[in-house]
Amino acid sequence: MAVVGATGAVGQEFLRLFVERDFPVERLKLLASGRSAGLKQEFRGNELVIEEATPDSFHEVDVAFFSAGASRSRALAPAAIAAGALVVDNSSAFRAEAGIPLIVPEVNPDAVLPDSRLIAVPNCTAIILVVAVNPLRELGKIDRIIVSTYQSASGGGAAMMRLLEDETRQLVEGKEPVASHLNTRYGFNLFSHNTPIDENGSNEEEAKVMSESRKILGMPDLKLNVTCIRVPILRAHSESVTIEFDGPAPSVEAVREVLSRAPGVRVIDDRAANRFPTPLDASGQGDVLIGRIRQDLSNPNAISMFITGDQLLKGAALNAVQIAEMILKRTPAIVR
Amino acid sequence: MAVVGATGAVGQEFLRLFVERDFPVERLKLLASGRSAGLKQEFRGNELVIEEATPDSFHEVDVAFFSAGASRSRALAPAAIAAGALVVDNSSAFRAEAGIPLIVPEVNPDAVLPDSRLIAVPNCTAIILVVAVNPLRELGKIDRIIVSTYQSASGGGAAMMRLLEDETRQLVEGKEPVASHLNTRYGFNLFSHNTPIDENGSNEEEAKVMSESRKILGMPDLKLNVTCIRVPILRAHSESVTIEFDGPAPSVEAVREVLSRAPGVRVIDDRAANRFPTPLDASGQGDVLIGRIRQDLSNPNAISMFITGDQLLKGAALNAVQIAEMILKRTPAIVR
Repeated sequence: MAVVGATGAVGQEFLRLFVERDFPVERLKLLASGRSAGLKQEFRGNELVIEEATPDSFHEVDVAFFSAGASRSRALAPAAIAAGALVVDNSSAFRAEAGIPLIVPEVNPDAVLPDSRLIAVPNCTAIILVVAVNPLRELGKIDRIIVSTYQSASGGGAAMMRLLEDETRQLVEGKEPVASHLNTRYGFNLFSHNTPIDENGSNEEEAKVMSESRKILGMPDLKLNVTCIRVPILRAHSESVTIEFDGPAPSVEAVREVLSRAPGVRVIDDRAANRFPTPLDASGQGDVLIGRIRQDLSNPNAISMFITGDQLLKGAALNAVQIAEMILKRTPAIVR
Repeated sequence: MAVVGATGAVGQEFLRLFVERDFPVERLKLLASGRSAGLKQEFRGNELVIEEATPDSFHEVDVAFFSAGASRSRALAPAAIAAGALVVDNSSAFRAEAGIPLIVPEVNPDAVLPDSRLIAVPNCTAIILVVAVNPLRELGKIDRIIVSTYQSASGGGAAMMRLLEDETRQLVEGKEPVASHLNTRYGFNLFSHNTPIDENGSNEEEAKVMSESRKILGMPDLKLNVTCIRVPILRAHSESVTIEFDGPAPSVEAVREVLSRAPGVRVIDDRAANRFPTPLDASGQGDVLIGRIRQDLSNPNAISMFITGDQLLKGAALNAVQIAEMILKRTPAIVR
């Protein structure tokens, strides 16, 4: 077993999840950039030394979890596969490739084929969306989804979480934060997702949510309108979602009923107590939380809801571990 | 001239605006609850003493700006009118009443009638929305608007701004904030607007945005889907907006062109530099900032955009002062 990107925000969640879920790890290799090589990391009472990730790192590795960015995955995943490892890749490197399964275990487990050696973990915002939306397909044909997101710092990694904390600390101390790599302040501020804008006016994150949601759901013609906004929250993404059906929308009761028995979902929807999901509720746990379930008053064919999930867990590390667990269950010999 | 609610977050903005805009204030009465009576407030180099607002407070008051909540407005506005004052009311008390003008000067100035003695200032989220949307009506008939908001603490007054700052300070110091009157933490968190939910599943804020936008725009049948979320931002509201037309959507270029010459609007929409409006840009200034203008990829009849405006200024005090300025210009004798 190997984790590439072990020192990152997602990498650290992998280590916690292996313990928490009693994942069958016999030998664990922690790989990172040369900068982190030699650092020590506690795991199950042992002290592991972080090694630099190179093409030679994967000897006798059965499963390699990659979470070190797309260019690192592109450079090293082929070597890991050649060495015999199953690669579960959290980066965007291979997600769009035909033949590469893009998997959310609650949604499309059967897209993993017996000979799949590389499984891509989708974009965090897409994962949280499809876990919430997929169960509703038993209530009618979904035609269009309109999403506005409230994305956390963790989507930009440990460095962006630190940036948010540092700027916020300076602001509550009455200081003006020094300019960061962002073109705006993050503390007590929000901004359009800072990825390049394409010719349609979508940023890269929005384009990923659209194309990956279609691939995961197996709905190439699904209409999607996505607006991705980064908010000053540490580690859970929220999404305001309107779902238009190809015909009259199901009742709020039917939606609640279907979601309350859907895998990976928890409904928190108490109108009387004004209690709905918050990213704080979602932080540190694995479910996608759903509330504010209601008829869209502007369209009889639509419903709206508000969802939130931990970006580092279900949006990344947990989804990857669940993929490996699923494959292990089918093919126990793969993990050693 | 009188300000009712002078010690509140909006009240303090009134005082700054009177100076900044050289508003013709000869005598100024600062009114507040009994709790604040006797406190002192500097204004144009003089020290004013805050008085308790009572029905007898309005003798010789020409214009009374109310910003002390709906119940205070209901209790005192009739006395102010009877004393001869023009009332500009920032509360929700009279907004829905037939015959009461609900005014955004850039949008529906003519809804003020010569004999209007009470003008209602709309809900802050509705003001920011209609300033951005109204100019687009020259490009086609608007059929439906879908809005998800990112609302600041200031919408809950000075107390909620303090709550956000206090909780955030405690969190960056590693402390767990004590429970507040909210049913969730606010620091580094966001939540569905904490107002009662009606039988349709809308909270009070969402219901206000829907009914008030229709009244201001004079479009009683406008279809609206509104989701109101409070985010950990201090004083500007942002909104992710999709506008569906009754026919093919105008081009992005046409939308930009119309908005760039619309009153009260500033377009910040630099795709190459990834520079779009943030609530920090909006804070402390009067325009509604608009960016992320793009074709809705899920509907050829729709466009999407992201807007933000200062909740205390254009969302409240500035809009009220602009109303008074407009009436003063038409009927100079009214202000003394």
